[in-house]
Amino acid sequence: MKIVVIGAGSVGMLLASFLAERFQVTVLVRRKEQEEAIRKHGIHRINLDGTITRLPVNVSTKYEDIRSDSFVIVAVKYTHLKEVLPRLEKLPEDIPLLFVQNGLAHFDEVLKLPQKTIGFGSCQFGAQKENDHTVNHRGIGVLKLAVERGKTGDFQWFSKVESASFPVQFVDDAEKMLFEKALYNCFINPLTAVLQIKNGELLTNRHAYILLKALYEECMEAFPERRETVSFEDVVSLCKKTASNSSSMLQDRLLNRKTEVESIVGAVIKKAEKNGKSLPILKTLYHLVLALEGEKT
Amino acid sequence: MKIVVIGAGSVGMLLASFLAERFQVTVLVRRKEQEEAIRKHGIHRINLDGTITRLPVNVSTKYEDIRSDSFVIVAVKYTHLKEVLPRLEKLPEDIPLLFVQNGLAHFDEVLKLPQKTIGFGSCQFGAQKENDHTVNHRGIGVLKLAVERGKTGDFQWFSKVESASFPVQFVDDAEKMLFEKALYNCFINPLTAVLQIKNGELLTNRHAYILLKALYEECMEAFPERRETVSFEDVVSLCKKTASNSSSMLQDRLLNRKTEVESIVGAVIKKAEKNGKSLPILKTLYHLVLALEGEKT
Repeated sequence: MKIVVIGAGSVGMLLASFLAERFQVTVLVRRKEQEEAIRKHGIHRINLDGTITRLPVNVSTKYEDIRSDSFVIVAVKYTHLKEVLPRLEKLPEDIPLLFVQNGLAHFDEVLKLPQKTIGFGSCQFGAQKENDHTVNHRGIGVLKLAVERGKTGDFQWFSKVESASFPVQFVDDAEKMLFEKALYNCFINPLTAVLQIKNGELLTNRHAYILLKALYEECMEAFPERRETVSFEDVVSLCKKTASNSSSMLQDRLLNRKTEVESIVGAVIKKAEKNGKSLPILKTLYHLVLALEGEKT
Repeated sequence: MKIVVIGAGSVGMLLASFLAERFQVTVLVRRKEQEEAIRKHGIHRINLDGTITRLPVNVSTKYEDIRSDSFVIVAVKYTHLKEVLPRLEKLPEDIPLLFVQNGLAHFDEVLKLPQKTIGFGSCQFGAQKENDHTVNHRGIGVLKLAVERGKTGDFQWFSKVESASFPVQFVDDAEKMLFEKALYNCFINPLTAVLQIKNGELLTNRHAYILLKALYEECMEAFPERRETVSFEDVVSLCKKTASNSSSMLQDRLLNRKTEVESIVGAVIKKAEKNGKSLPILKTLYHLVLALEGEKT
């Protein structure tokens, strides 16, 4: 079993490091400097207890190096997916593909690819990139997998790498899984990014909490069928579990990077509008995040 | 004609400095240090052309010093008004009072006072406090006056201090005047405070502009009768005129001071809710400003 992980950001590196404990992993990167760093050091994973696990992986910048017996995990952010998709299109149709992007925006696009087996993943773990070859495992969280098309059997090897620090769970409905993750992101990410607070402060700051609750209620009015699977208690408990984390959107803001507000929040707003529902609170936060990114008129 | 100005923040000092050009002015302050500074220096006004005008005024910390032939201007912020009102109540009923607070929250409260003549002012000028005895005149803007109760004649002396740099205009309806000022504040203040941008950037930042427009439309749906007197073009032209200014709410945020969001934005939201209208965008901004002030749950 040859595994290729495309993209070595925080998610790609953490996945590669866990998978490399059992399988031969090749990481496909864009930048020469990162290629050299990973070639020299392998991938270093800072574990929750502070120990460092060094894992050897192969590294390449060329899609031609992907062999036809590979399993390909696409771990680039949505914003880079448009550069990756035309290259994936040229890969053999028998290669199974797994996409682990945030948001909903990639779902339909990805399914236009010719590959016979396509799955989606939703990462609940905490990961922070420290440098080009080091990732910090910031919190245990399940990797949810859903096979949308093709052979479920192609994904069964994931059970072999599962562990207490890297739990894996198969779910049935990929779109539902991605949408529910997007909802959690909508509740936590824009608010923490605009207010520049850690996830836990959504519960301890009185007016942030009022907004969190109002945002939850607004989204549940637009998507009432989600109320059972995504309860407000679940949202609160996620904030507690990740209390000391900075959300990815806050991290992006603090580093002056483009956030994923479009593919996560924008996609949820579009989905609601398709159903004739408006989300004024979420939409306000959406525009505030984009305003903070500072695009000029 | 003896004029007493209660409060020597930016608005109180600027008013006192212009009035002291023609009348005997006493400034009533709370802090001993400010009393000493003004006693020593008078009030220094930095004019628009950079010159400094030094004006002698009397200064006191005691309400007992207010003589019965005074005209009293109350220039403290709304948040301090509750300490001032019980003292005003004890003043002779013949003393005319003029209130120049932002927002709407003080309107009904103030009219419970026993004084026979009560007016309201709305300041459009730009003023920034530099130190305890110095105020910076940051932009020419009209002082609107409306006599809500009693003798309009008591306010006529204002025409004597009027000038090109200190224009004064009498209007009929105090509540309408305060409400329209509050609306402008609702459009500009919370957005600039949350985004930490100057007024002009509401026009040049694409998503800030989208929010400004949406906020205007939302408020006009709640108060359709205001669409004629407060047009979106007026809002845009105010942003242009004050492009390089930091709104008072942004100044308060940057100095870690409590903002006036409650008496301005909160009061407009309450007024809308009384009419059965909700203002979700404005309400989101309201809670964001309060969340940034960081009150704990």
